[in-house]
Amino acid sequence: MFYLVSFDISDDRIRYRVVKELKGYGYRVQKSVFECPSMTEKRFLRLKDRLEMLIDWTTDSVRYYRLCRGCLRDVEVSGLGSAPDVEKYGMV
Amino acid sequence: MFYLVSFDISDDRIRYRVVKELKGYGYRVQKSVFECPSMTEKRFLRLKDRLEMLIDWTTDSVRYYRLCRGCLRDVEVSGLGSAPDVEKYGMV
Repeated sequence: MFYLVSFDISDDRIRYRVVKELKGYGYRVQKSVFECPSMTEKRFLRLKDRLEMLIDWTTDSVRYYRLCRGCLRDVEVSGLGSAPDVEKYGMV
Repeated sequence: MFYLVSFDISDDRIRYRVVKELKGYGYRVQKSVFECPSMTEKRFLRLKDRLEMLIDWTTDSVRYYRLCRGCLRDVEVSGLGSAPDVEKYGMV
């Protein structure tokens, strides 16, 4: 499964730790957006649990968007960066 | 169609204008993430054209993710905010 994870974190230390955690699951495509291509349900739940322990629920937010093959194929980019490579991720 | 649009814009004036433009198409769910629920192909192309005229292609990036009904139903959130309301958007 492919997930896009975006975040708004107010505290610099917490943001650092959230980014560090996300780097274990995917690629940083924008300052507050990661693409996590090879997620299983188990990996996703573990990531979500970890992030939920890190963030301040009164100020921070993390959004998780699962993208199916069809949606993934339609990703477009303006400016820097490139769309995810669907074939490379061997999406079912 | 439902689009998630995320951006990294270095210049404050350009970012202000990008946000202003996006507000005409959807809702700001995080600092650099908008959800645009009722997009037609024509509206999407007009939005993309507008943003491409505004941004600095050497420093900025805008990413457009179309989300089908199935992907939209799986959106999850930790902390502040809520997932998009699929029924409300009458997604086909």
